[in-house]
Amino acid sequence: MNSSIDAWLDSVSGNDRIWYAKRLSANDSGATASHQSGIYIPKPVLWTIFPSMKSGSNPDARFSAEVMPVGEHRTLRAIWYNEKSRNESRITQWNRPNRILEPDQTGAIILFAFQKRSSKGDAEHASIWLCQNEAEEEQIESIVGIVEPGEGTLHYPAGLVGDKPLFIQPDMRKDCSLTKNDIPDEWLANFPSCQELIKRALSMMPKSWGGPDTRLLARRECETTLFYSVERAFVLPIIKNGFSSVDEFVDLANSVTNRRKSRAGHSLELHLKEIFQEEGLSFSHGEVSEGNKKPDFIFPSIDAYRDPAWPEHKLRMLAAKTTCKDRWRQILNEANRIAHKHLVTLQQGVSENQFREMVDAGVMLVVPKKLHGSYPETVRARLQSLEQFIQETKSFAKA
Amino acid sequence: MNSSIDAWLDSVSGNDRIWYAKRLSANDSGATASHQSGIYIPKPVLWTIFPSMKSGSNPDARFSAEVMPVGEHRTLRAIWYNEKSRNESRITQWNRPNRILEPDQTGAIILFAFQKRSSKGDAEHASIWLCQNEAEEEQIESIVGIVEPGEGTLHYPAGLVGDKPLFIQPDMRKDCSLTKNDIPDEWLANFPSCQELIKRALSMMPKSWGGPDTRLLARRECETTLFYSVERAFVLPIIKNGFSSVDEFVDLANSVTNRRKSRAGHSLELHLKEIFQEEGLSFSHGEVSEGNKKPDFIFPSIDAYRDPAWPEHKLRMLAAKTTCKDRWRQILNEANRIAHKHLVTLQQGVSENQFREMVDAGVMLVVPKKLHGSYPETVRARLQSLEQFIQETKSFAKA
Repeated sequence: MNSSIDAWLDSVSGNDRIWYAKRLSANDSGATASHQSGIYIPKPVLWTIFPSMKSGSNPDARFSAEVMPVGEHRTLRAIWYNEKSRNESRITQWNRPNRILEPDQTGAIILFAFQKRSSKGDAEHASIWLCQNEAEEEQIESIVGIVEPGEGTLHYPAGLVGDKPLFIQPDMRKDCSLTKNDIPDEWLANFPSCQELIKRALSMMPKSWGGPDTRLLARRECETTLFYSVERAFVLPIIKNGFSSVDEFVDLANSVTNRRKSRAGHSLELHLKEIFQEEGLSFSHGEVSEGNKKPDFIFPSIDAYRDPAWPEHKLRMLAAKTTCKDRWRQILNEANRIAHKHLVTLQQGVSENQFREMVDAGVMLVVPKKLHGSYPETVRARLQSLEQFIQETKSFAKA
Repeated sequence: MNSSIDAWLDSVSGNDRIWYAKRLSANDSGATASHQSGIYIPKPVLWTIFPSMKSGSNPDARFSAEVMPVGEHRTLRAIWYNEKSRNESRITQWNRPNRILEPDQTGAIILFAFQKRSSKGDAEHASIWLCQNEAEEEQIESIVGIVEPGEGTLHYPAGLVGDKPLFIQPDMRKDCSLTKNDIPDEWLANFPSCQELIKRALSMMPKSWGGPDTRLLARRECETTLFYSVERAFVLPIIKNGFSSVDEFVDLANSVTNRRKSRAGHSLELHLKEIFQEEGLSFSHGEVSEGNKKPDFIFPSIDAYRDPAWPEHKLRMLAAKTTCKDRWRQILNEANRIAHKHLVTLQQGVSENQFREMVDAGVMLVVPKKLHGSYPETVRARLQSLEQFIQETKSFAKA
């Protein structure tokens, strides 16, 4: 327990703290060179931390900050641009006198530990940790839960939450929300697996719903909504009555946390599997390529892969990772016979450097069309959409 | 999420399961070659899983088991030896026709996922995972909490616990238990740090309490008791009223879990620091030896360590790890100048092989006297007690 993030996390866990953790998008880190500068922060989060900013014209607030592990001090500025057609909130003033945010930090978790003197006043200070590696990210995620690309998550480290604390809901689709009466009895007896929830999302959004890219994102939102609907119906009746022992309380919460983690680890991969089946692609899922290596998908099949007579240029592998920073390297030694690896990710951008490193290592990014706009322009042109990947892999099998 | 323990953990998380996780002692694994055979299991745990065994003479129950990751099948036997002077319960019949438990697994976590058809009946089956490495252990600990050497821990994976589920309390000292009135107000406002709790334990058990070995174990028990007393007073008033949102519930529980983890990571080291001060030893605590290496303790000081003129044979380093299986290797590259590393552990035994590996790598085990009995006889003679370590380090400084 010697590493400095441990001690730092302890030091920012008092009951005067509110944490906000998010993964840096390419836009946040400056990798897209857009006009926006600074880190995007959802307005409800901003208003929780700076209640004075709920009204006015381009309201802003300044606060002192220490950015770790580099130990740089800054006076940062929180601002809600609400004039004319604009409507977005950011935290700015990072890079003077010298840069703190670097394009190559795209995809990293940043944790703000805001400090407030009173729950109704504005935060006056923030201790900030900008993760340098996966180990630091895992440590933060073990406390706040999995941080997926997108809006990020709020956490109250001392657990002493006021009335109606704010939590960030993942993107919800009203058309997939279930009331208690809609939920099958067996789901309330034994929590449904990720696969069962995906089947339900599929039945609501069949192939005719749209192209593969559209289906993937819509169904994931739908499955997420289903998951949280069932979780609510499953857990609320137990927790609303309270607990008489701390262990019982912690044990139940661990089961909830663990279910969320397990779902986050499987969802993307299982959605892709369904889409490949719908599109009539031939593939193997989760089979051993060699030793204990199990690439997510092998095309056209693991038998072809294992057949030395099958030509290598007719093989393809695909890995699925919601975030790809650092993690993309994990796939390099999967499926030795296939030099070029494909990787589906939902990360909101990568920097030009990061992309070049991937290309040099033989990794090709597959990104749902809707997310292409979050990548730097030079990178955007070289991304594959899911639909393109499917078409190419099909033609490939025929050739 | 490809590794097989993930899928296995998911598969044993239904609401018909009760988990019991413990670290194998040398006696459990067969490393001590004692007459007892099989894995010790506390009686309250046994009775929760096999209610029929609460009475009778040497009552026992047999159940089918699959032991992973090796995939061996067994009919295991749970038994409570209660005849004559005996009074202990074990799970036996592991090693026929071939060995499953090996002495070199001493210190590893074993997880039993018992399966019961009804909460009042006996378990009929157990799926068992015997961890092969630290990564698997960390994954289990991320669900059930830190598993320290000793009695182990019960967990209800579906969270659907019956009336008054059993939880295992760590060793408690009645003389250190605090009622709500005994607890300082400031501790109820901001949870006390591990250091504050240790100070309190120290004031109740001063130096006159006994030798260093006795003091270390007694104070750790005392501090543990204080910790859980304060946790109860801190958390129960919040959780007894129930929750209206799952996120609020999970967030509070994460803060509890994280506090427990942080304490488990610091307690042993901080107790040792206090004892070294009381004994008048000269030392540095948590200072950088080189690069980003921070050995727990350097004797007589980090200045001496950094002074090239200071002779190497007058330097010593000590690391503190409650469990040392696998982890002992982490200390090998700390403090380059010191070839022989000392390691304090509370693990209940190591195998002869494990000990030989440590000795060959220059690691010397320091173990509180009371725990020596849990080591194989040949190893026992070569352990240092804490008192011996302190005496030697003192004489060393004088020479």
